Amino acid sequence: MTKKVIEIICSIVAPQGFKASGVFCDIKRIGTGKGSDKGQKRDLGLIVSNVPATVAGLFTTNQICAAPVKACLERVKKGPAQAIVVNSGNANACTGKQGMKDALEMLSFTERVLNIKPGMAMVGSTGRIGLTLPMDNVRAGIVEAAVELGSTAQHAARVAEAMMTSDTRQKQIAVEVQIGGKKVRVGGICKGAGMIQPGMSANGKRPAVRPLHATMLCFITTDALIEQKALQIALGEAVAQSFNRITVDGDMSTNDTVLVLANGLANNSRIQSASSGAGKIFQAALNHVCLELAKMIVRDGEGVSRFVTVRVNGATSFADADAAARAVANSALVKTSWHGGDPNWGRIIDALGYSPAVIAEEKVDIGYSTPNSGKILWSLRRGQPTSATFKQLCAAVAEREFDLHINLNLGKASALMYAADLTEDYVAFNKGDVSDPSSLGG
Amino acid sequence: MTKKVIEIICSIVAPQGFKASGVFCDIKRIGTGKGSDKGQKRDLGLIVSNVPATVAGLFTTNQICAAPVKACLERVKKGPAQAIVVNSGNANACTGKQGMKDALEMLSFTERVLNIKPGMAMVGSTGRIGLTLPMDNVRAGIVEAAVELGSTAQHAARVAEAMMTSDTRQKQIAVEVQIGGKKVRVGGICKGAGMIQPGMSANGKRPAVRPLHATMLCFITTDALIEQKALQIALGEAVAQSFNRITVDGDMSTNDTVLVLANGLANNSRIQSASSGAGKIFQAALNHVCLELAKMIVRDGEGVSRFVTVRVNGATSFADADAAARAVANSALVKTSWHGGDPNWGRIIDALGYSPAVIAEEKVDIGYSTPNSGKILWSLRRGQPTSATFKQLCAAVAEREFDLHINLNLGKASALMYAADLTEDYVAFNKGDVSDPSSLGG
Repeated sequence: MTKKVIEIICSIVAPQGFKASGVFCDIKRIGTGKGSDKGQKRDLGLIVSNVPATVAGLFTTNQICAAPVKACLERVKKGPAQAIVVNSGNANACTGKQGMKDALEMLSFTERVLNIKPGMAMVGSTGRIGLTLPMDNVRAGIVEAAVELGSTAQHAARVAEAMMTSDTRQKQIAVEVQIGGKKVRVGGICKGAGMIQPGMSANGKRPAVRPLHATMLCFITTDALIEQKALQIALGEAVAQSFNRITVDGDMSTNDTVLVLANGLANNSRIQSASSGAGKIFQAALNHVCLELAKMIVRDGEGVSRFVTVRVNGATSFADADAAARAVANSALVKTSWHGGDPNWGRIIDALGYSPAVIAEEKVDIGYSTPNSGKILWSLRRGQPTSATFKQLCAAVAEREFDLHINLNLGKASALMYAADLTEDYVAFNKGDVSDPSSLGG
Repeated sequence: MTKKVIEIICSIVAPQGFKASGVFCDIKRIGTGKGSDKGQKRDLGLIVSNVPATVAGLFTTNQICAAPVKACLERVKKGPAQAIVVNSGNANACTGKQGMKDALEMLSFTERVLNIKPGMAMVGSTGRIGLTLPMDNVRAGIVEAAVELGSTAQHAARVAEAMMTSDTRQKQIAVEVQIGGKKVRVGGICKGAGMIQPGMSANGKRPAVRPLHATMLCFITTDALIEQKALQIALGEAVAQSFNRITVDGDMSTNDTVLVLANGLANNSRIQSASSGAGKIFQAALNHVCLELAKMIVRDGEGVSRFVTVRVNGATSFADADAAARAVANSALVKTSWHGGDPNWGRIIDALGYSPAVIAEEKVDIGYSTPNSGKILWSLRRGQPTSATFKQLCAAVAEREFDLHINLNLGKASALMYAADLTEDYVAFNKGDVSDPSSLGG
């Protein structure tokens, strides 16, 4: 974080002119014939700007893409927007024509209740795949959420809670920067814990370097005054360095969504381009928000006990560096060795070898460091084990967070991935409890 | 299995003119400073033909490939061969020049001890990556194994045991066919339990459809009289339908090897081509041996509780069918749902959607059957949930073995994968025990 980006509180209501609320409307249990979850986590939230806002978005590139994603893809193209409605407990994915009808009704009902213009609402859903939404509950939730809107930290936290599925904690952040003498704020909330390896783009087309695969939802608010095109470019850049570089389990969701609303109330001189002076300051703020939120997802991943930053250097191309980093970050054997605190470089070099990246055994370096420390303890240099002892190497990977350094020594390209280990708890959580179908995640 | 292929006993010594032996020479503990494993499983084996045999082989396409693989690649090109020496406990992978020197010495020492011509031995190794072989032990083992050679079922079983690492049981088979009035036998043994998704080829070049990634070793003997070229083609065909279609954890080893020795002692009229009448009978025998051994690997996979045959039909190309089957068979969320007996089609369609295969949500069928039963219980037809109840679907996936049927309904291409679930036991096994480095698998 540069000194110019200052973390502040209140996340999505930190920027001027935003209100939020989160309520419980019992979405999860409906359809499974079970009783009410009353008293459980909130499951429907609203984020509202006092004035219409410029909107940009990125969405899953999974070919199976949920109704709310399809609806938002169309609306982001048109813009502007003034509200976001989000629910957990039901992903409204693989729900056919009824699902699209329900998503559109969530939008139009939200617009009527908030008394904003048609086309001004956006929607996000997360939860079980293949069940249609209990629309009576959703409507009741929207009415209640509209009444509860407010701008305190508690209001923001309630939306963060309403988005949670297997998440164990709320994920929120806000920052402040100065642009041309004006105070500009960017706030964000997100959710995601499993089915996490997003590969989002603005148009459903996969990025040139294709990530594989969570539902993660992220909603960002800002009072910056910025052109839509510049906002979309800035968001693409921020997501490429954050959400599209994380993996918990290598599965890409049907619902991944990042939306940003920029309502302009900071009254800075309008940012015309992400590469202008003002654009760069805004970009730094947006990057910080996205990266910190993305890391929160990995740290709170299902059953996760270790957070590993996989840094690949010396590849002949970015595509190779990326492929090498993803092969290591998604290898079941590498991930289980991290869980066990086993500095097993054999599994790492094995994963490098089967990745699509070009590798030369006699050139590969593998080492470890604590995060942000300059000192790397190398276990392998130029394909040969170093004099580092097993005990030293075990100590290097015993921490909850460490960096894995891989140098292919073939070129100049680099890539990194923020990755989780694979634990018994992940398996136990995801094998579910078939005696209680409503417990089974999407 | 066609009626013409009859299963018999004695695996690799069933064909005429083969001897085998397996001994303990304490390879695993060496290098870790621990005491002897005496009393543990055998760790060095020999397979010997009485006469020089035609040889064919397929090897890992991992770019990091072990010294024994490199040595065999060269030798298979030249042929013939008369002996195979195999060890477990040490993969002789990532061992640099010393590793290659050791592999070549294992070969030349075996040739001298057996009194066969130079170039006539082949070698396979499996176990921990990155440690050099304890050559004094290996030499002592080879001498002892040469003394112990014999042709009983027990002799064959000892080699099968000497190849085991995390395997819980020996994997052996033999079959008999009639070719031109002559009795021809094919026998095989294999090992493999983790780091299993082989993608083998004859020349290090990846197959057009690239599997991702175990060490698996498989040694096949036959008394068929067959041309080398026909043997190599037949082996390629058999492996494409068996070992290259299995996955335990999606990791491809540095050491995967399949070798076949054909010593001609059945005295059938020489098989000139795999597509001739005699060639087809031999192919059926070889296919049966490879497929049954491959399935044994998945069933004995580390921590495995379920064996699932993933059948994809209706793809627009084989590449798409293969990619779709592999995405499902390697998804952490799908594999954990199998472990839990959860018929979660949402995770399956999610994996299809992020696979490189072309998918249309409104066309996808997903269903289950017991193996070899014609009756499929569909959970999804044309993208819509069927009337099958959750209870019925749970019953369909409650068996230790079941078939998953996916029809993309877009074309005519098909592919299948033999896959394992992902369990807490897999994680517990592979996280290892860092207090005992010698326990950590390769």
